[in-house]
Amino acid sequence: MHKPHDPDFAARVRTSFGRQPAMALIGATLPVVEAGHTEIHLPRRADLLQQHGYIHGGVVGMIADSAAGYAAATLTAAEASVLTVEYKINLLAPADGQLLIAEGSVLRYGRTLIITRGEVFAVQDGYKTLCAVMQQTIMTVHGKKEINHKE
Amino acid sequence: MHKPHDPDFAARVRTSFGRQPAMALIGATLPVVEAGHTEIHLPRRADLLQQHGYIHGGVVGMIADSAAGYAAATLTAAEASVLTVEYKINLLAPADGQLLIAEGSVLRYGRTLIITRGEVFAVQDGYKTLCAVMQQTIMTVHGKKEINHKE
Amino acid sequence: MHKPHDPDFAARVRTSFGRQPAMALIGATLPVVEAGHTEIHLPRRADLLQQHGYIHGGVVGMIADSAAGYAAATLTAAEASVLTVEYKINLLAPADGQLLIAEGSVLRYGRTLIITRGEVFAVQDGYKTLCAVMQQTIMTVHGKKEINHKE
Amino acid sequence: MHKPHDPDFAARVRTSFGRQPAMALIGATLPVVEAGHTEIHLPRRADLLQQHGYIHGGVVGMIADSAAGYAAATLTAAEASVLTVEYKINLLAPADGQLLIAEGSVLRYGRTLIITRGEVFAVQDGYKTLCAVMQQTIMTVHGKKEINHKE
Repeated sequence: MHKPHDPDFAARVRTSFGRQPAMALIGATLPVVEAGHTEIHLPRRADLLQQHGYIHGGVVGMIADSAAGYAAATLTAAEASVLTVEYKINLLAPADGQLLIAEGSVLRYGRTLIITRGEVFAVQDGYKTLCAVMQQTIMTVHGKKEINHKE
Repeated sequence: MHKPHDPDFAARVRTSFGRQPAMALIGATLPVVEAGHTEIHLPRRADLLQQHGYIHGGVVGMIADSAAGYAAATLTAAEASVLTVEYKINLLAPADGQLLIAEGSVLRYGRTLIITRGEVFAVQDGYKTLCAVMQQTIMTVHGKKEINHKE
Repeated sequence: MHKPHDPDFAARVRTSFGRQPAMALIGATLPVVEAGHTEIHLPRRADLLQQHGYIHGGVVGMIADSAAGYAAATLTAAEASVLTVEYKINLLAPADGQLLIAEGSVLRYGRTLIITRGEVFAVQDGYKTLCAVMQQTIMTVHGKKEINHKE
Repeated sequence: MHKPHDPDFAARVRTSFGRQPAMALIGATLPVVEAGHTEIHLPRRADLLQQHGYIHGGVVGMIADSAAGYAAATLTAAEASVLTVEYKINLLAPADGQLLIAEGSVLRYGRTLIITRGEVFAVQDGYKTLCAVMQQTIMTVHGKKEINHKE
């Protein structure tokens, strides 16, 4: 449905994701990168929980924000970067599962702004429960250099 | 301005914060707990960054969400818990500083719902820059047991 | 998909809509009322415009808010009322059409809170363009009497 | 605090407000226009109400959106226009008063995006009650012609 400007968008997005130490800290991976759509997976880990034993709502927000931001990034020019302008997230159900899956999709692609949607599912014993929905505004910026933290 | 129902709100909120492994993971502390107001501090750490070298927007959201949620918790009855229904955050400037300070304040306290505001500042060389503003809806729930992850 | 508590939900929702003078003022109608879903139609009128000749963004928000709120109302008990706690709307494209259609749908029904989604389309010469998306939180309240403004 | 680019910003903003038939339809006026701040007044009228006898939440959103959007417009270049990208509003209390006052203020002015805050108060018998808070993202666009609907 969305036509990417950059034929090598998937490699570029995976490289950028690999440059986010915060995603490594929580153990998030990016197994799906399509034009206008990405998915982040986050296995449950004891140090990601809040006081009721569910994955912290802020962590749910982090992966929703990142999945939708990278969905936007799949559609930009190769040299552009994306910044999150804002997002709004409703937490529908406790993030109670062995795995969280955050799906990000582009709703509207514009030259300056990209509007996206995020959905986070908790997977438990083979069942997927929708636990968060997000609406997000992304801005495309040019000439912002990414940092390879491992160099 | 806000009158707490629970005279021991500060100890209760600090205990609850201590039961959030996710806050320990990122190195956040809760140095300020007043009636209707809390502040979370987060020192910059290499593993909290994103690809441009700033603190990850999702981490900014985590501490804004938590500071405002605990501001709500200061005003509830002792046996109640708070859940984040939703929040919306605008990232105004890169989270570029040696320290982030997230301030949470209650805008309106209701029996079922508590509406809060969060503001995140980046502190660099003694200067504070507003880098995010948040609006949040919190629900009070009764009879939800907290978990001490260290037991 | 959603099972209504009140078998007469459609008549009840239509009656409530008829008690909103603000909907009459702008010329909005409610042609579709299903369990968990409603649609509001708004024909273009010169007095609904803003300074660029499009339908005012605030009017777009009004019909999105109302369509999603009534979608929530289809699922409540007969004697309950719904209140909008909050909503967030992204305006994706100018509301430029002969007719606006606001579709409201329930994402998650809870005893106290109902989370909904709204989408507004502009219809021009037979083509539908998505011009706004909304996420909304609705609270169910009991014992709130509606007013028949025409009595 | 904010320094306007256009010394004649107040006259320009008042003219633009006068070109919004939707504001005339509901009876809104713009008595305050300062650099980075405006206020819209809306007297209660029977045809602005919802089914509980309060001013319709969508109308509250309309004046919050407009006040904050015009606050942004006070700071732009003379030939620029502003568009609402998105807003999020929490309705804190019923809009129950003889007069509503919507105050819009710029939180951060950027070249492309302007982030604002809106607050709506209900005035009854000399008392002001905060009934809504809003966060909004505005985009500055160049070369968009305004329409004088009265010509």
